[in-house]
Amino acid sequence: MEIANQIVTVHTKRQGLIEITPQILEIVRSSQVKDGLCTVFIRHTSASLIIQENADPSARTDLEYFLNKLIPENDTGFTHTAEGSDDMPSHIKSAITQTALSIPVVSGELALGTWQGIYLWEHRVNPHLRKIVVNLIGR
Amino acid sequence: MEIANQIVTVHTKRQGLIEITPQILEIVRSSQVKDGLCTVFIRHTSASLIIQENADPSARTDLEYFLNKLIPENDTGFTHTAEGSDDMPSHIKSAITQTALSIPVVSGELALGTWQGIYLWEHRVNPHLRKIVVNLIGR
Amino acid sequence: MEIANQIVTVHTKRQGLIEITPQILEIVRSSQVKDGLCTVFIRHTSASLIIQENADPSARTDLEYFLNKLIPENDTGFTHTAEGSDDMPSHIKSAITQTALSIPVVSGELALGTWQGIYLWEHRVNPHLRKIVVNLIGR
Repeated sequence: MEIANQIVTVHTKRQGLIEITPQILEIVRSSQVKDGLCTVFIRHTSASLIIQENADPSARTDLEYFLNKLIPENDTGFTHTAEGSDDMPSHIKSAITQTALSIPVVSGELALGTWQGIYLWEHRVNPHLRKIVVNLIGR
Repeated sequence: MEIANQIVTVHTKRQGLIEITPQILEIVRSSQVKDGLCTVFIRHTSASLIIQENADPSARTDLEYFLNKLIPENDTGFTHTAEGSDDMPSHIKSAITQTALSIPVVSGELALGTWQGIYLWEHRVNPHLRKIVVNLIGR
Repeated sequence: MEIANQIVTVHTKRQGLIEITPQILEIVRSSQVKDGLCTVFIRHTSASLIIQENADPSARTDLEYFLNKLIPENDTGFTHTAEGSDDMPSHIKSAITQTALSIPVVSGELALGTWQGIYLWEHRVNPHLRKIVVNLIGR
């Protein structure tokens, strides 16, 4: 059995979805795991992960638009505001999306559907350094 | 160690929750894995997975009602509308529910609670063919 | 390869977030798994799991405040009301947060970020006995 943990570092520039499928695929393809499970884990609570449509960028634009409308910065009920008005909405967006993604590995490839891409979702307005752990178990 | 990947195909008829616990259980029970992990992964971004109450169907009806109210089709801010007015809400519903579910396998059975069932949530209005990968790791 | 499943029981007192990081860490550290994957699975549909900021408690207060505002008890569209007005909101909150969390294990430790804690989110108003399965795969 093979077990591997590798770190992917992403420099985000602003709020939004950043495709990380190529980096994850490269780790899978250069590993010894032909069949098994790939877990992608983000080590932050103000950025998150999702699998979304990779074809039309308007789907990602609308996702951002909708979540910003659903969870606005100016909610007067927020008390956790010391780190900026975009901080608390970031935690909520992280809570309702994913901190970890599990994707089967079949014949050395991620079992993603044709239109699925893996995205890091930066919820903060300013640039951040984000660390992702890619865990592989299989043979 | 055993590793198995199997495909489950579901023909959805309309928007809504479809229980897939029996199909997943059958794969687990006919596998060599007595203790380990079962990962259920849907290869789409306009249908998703959740674990929900399997007792009273009104819980599922209300889940659908609430998500349809929270994410209505007629949001004039949406730009991703070429595939129909139910497409963008489908992506958002997928983003805030699950693409993958991880369930421990104990003594050859899924470690689900008494009232937990596994559901495919079709978010599109029209029928679709949905593919799910069931990944098993264990012994 | 090591595979272990262990049950953690939590007595919740009221609605809210309860940190369970110490219990999960203890299981990881006392196991034979130095590198692998830890899956935390809750066997309920009216309580859920999230990874959130463990530093400032106001982040958790605001999370609860926001989800209670987003999914209020008094929604007149709900039909699943036999078990109390807090029951249906509990199922919805569970559906949009997590039933299972996957966390890589590296050198005998969970690969959590500095500010990440693991939380059980009790969505019901009254006390409950909640069962969590902690699954470890690795070596």
